[in-house]
Amino acid sequence: MAIKEGLRPGGRSARVQESVHNATRELLQAHERSSVTVPMIAARAGVTPSTIYRRWGDLSALLADVALARMRPDSEPANTGSLRGDLRAWAEQYLDEMSSEPGRNMMRDVQCSVTPGYCVSILSGQLQTIVDRYPNDLRPSVDHLINLLAAPTVFRILFSTTPPTVEELHALIELALKN
Amino acid sequence: MAIKEGLRPGGRSARVQESVHNATRELLQAHERSSVTVPMIAARAGVTPSTIYRRWGDLSALLADVALARMRPDSEPANTGSLRGDLRAWAEQYLDEMSSEPGRNMMRDVQCSVTPGYCVSILSGQLQTIVDRYPNDLRPSVDHLINLLAAPTVFRILFSTTPPTVEELHALIELALKN
Repeated sequence: MAIKEGLRPGGRSARVQESVHNATRELLQAHERSSVTVPMIAARAGVTPSTIYRRWGDLSALLADVALARMRPDSEPANTGSLRGDLRAWAEQYLDEMSSEPGRNMMRDVQCSVTPGYCVSILSGQLQTIVDRYPNDLRPSVDHLINLLAAPTVFRILFSTTPPTVEELHALIELALKN
Repeated sequence: MAIKEGLRPGGRSARVQESVHNATRELLQAHERSSVTVPMIAARAGVTPSTIYRRWGDLSALLADVALARMRPDSEPANTGSLRGDLRAWAEQYLDEMSSEPGRNMMRDVQCSVTPGYCVSILSGQLQTIVDRYPNDLRPSVDHLINLLAAPTVFRILFSTTPPTVEELHALIELALKN
């Protein structure tokens, strides 16, 4: 799988990526998602379809990359001065983002793509940043936080009639902090 | 939404449902999922397309109903004699089923359908059956069990590189039983 991280800004590779991402976003705004194809994206981005296939593998991987780029946080998780506060701020923002229309689209694209784990690795990075701020606290593992905070949020949004409430998230944070 | 429960066995409505379900399953075995249509199913089942639209609403709801019917447990959850044992047996079976190809297809169909909550209501019924067996135990709520057992299982299958291990599920059960 060819999603590239840490591209040199301004390099040829980064320019191709930006152009393909922009073309994809524009086409998704103008057309039904199911009618957007790799040749359409390539034509609009001014690259060959084989450039896209070589770099992303297939359309679903490209859609997932574009969706993830949009959702990827452009800043560090909020620093409130306490582990509990940071986790609350993170969980509330995650709930907001995933309940939104772009969040739901992203979850769908990521599931259909050939990049399992990419999404979880972004979440893990954010949660690791938070727990690393409090070396003297009794800290839950990042995997435990994903099971207790991210999993119920996403599961309830996708499969239940109601997303979790903020109070439920706070209770799950207390449970995570107990261990 | 028109998924019917508790149909009178042998009644006209039950016969239509059985015929449409069978036609759908047969077509899904013979064709790409994306090429199966309501008129194809109707023709094979010997009903009119409008019968299907009236009863199920749309194709994705019908696919979800068929997938759920296949996954719906035909027996009570295993009774091992203890709450911990029953939860372990349930969680292990749920992990097995959801990791399978039919389980993954079901999750996809259910997400695309207009029946949010139907899937969770089946899970809740099973877990309620289990907790009702142990009125003298300190029992977690069914919602809590869904957040702590079903959610991490499904989230990890859909978004991570590895599903949870049986040991992780056991640890989550201990956490649920503590509260």
